[in-house]
Amino acid sequence: MDNCIFCKIINGTIPARKVYEDDDLVAIEDINPVAPHHILLIPRKHIVNALDLTAGDDALVGRVFRAAAAIARERGVDERGFRIVQNTNADAGQSVFHIHFHLLAGRHLGWPPG
Amino acid sequence: MDNCIFCKIINGTIPARKVYEDDDLVAIEDINPVAPHHILLIPRKHIVNALDLTAGDDALVGRVFRAAAAIARERGVDERGFRIVQNTNADAGQSVFHIHFHLLAGRHLGWPPG
Repeated sequence: MDNCIFCKIINGTIPARKVYEDDDLVAIEDINPVAPHHILLIPRKHIVNALDLTAGDDALVGRVFRAAAAIARERGVDERGFRIVQNTNADAGQSVFHIHFHLLAGRHLGWPPG
Repeated sequence: MDNCIFCKIINGTIPARKVYEDDDLVAIEDINPVAPHHILLIPRKHIVNALDLTAGDDALVGRVFRAAAAIARERGVDERGFRIVQNTNADAGQSVFHIHFHLLAGRHLGWPPG
């Protein structure tokens, strides 16, 4: 997708602080972190949001969650805990229309979640 | 799991307002809603949280997301948007140790998400 900032980060046209990548996804530091650990997990495939997921993407979503758990373990915040958040469309504040998952950790995360 | 409230809801021992179910998951109304639409999506399999996910669960996580999107569509909140939240351990406020995913919709959801 020519005008997608996350596609540009994935293909290296726009720089980002990558913390993890594999064949399916890239994880970067959020540029506006709201927690001591705030990582975006971004599938390489340009999926718009949760409404755009098909059955063929099912395993990809699970791999995102396992990557998030692995990053939490690596950073030593797994036992204290972490939150994974996915926003779809305006009410949720989705700002980049390439599906991504926020991993938040390192502080108490209040309720409600927004 | 004998003492798991969500296993008891899934097997019918404890009542809940089910809004959707299939072979893989059950969706119920949250008993303490924090948004006009606040649904819990609960895999039938007793997985503790994101740290307990294995490769064999990958597709299950994707099915949860597609079920959440389908519920949002059915309720007419897909275009306005929705947030999906998964909490692991204490910092995130995980209170039931059977993995579940919050679907929140029907109002503006602020940032940060907790």
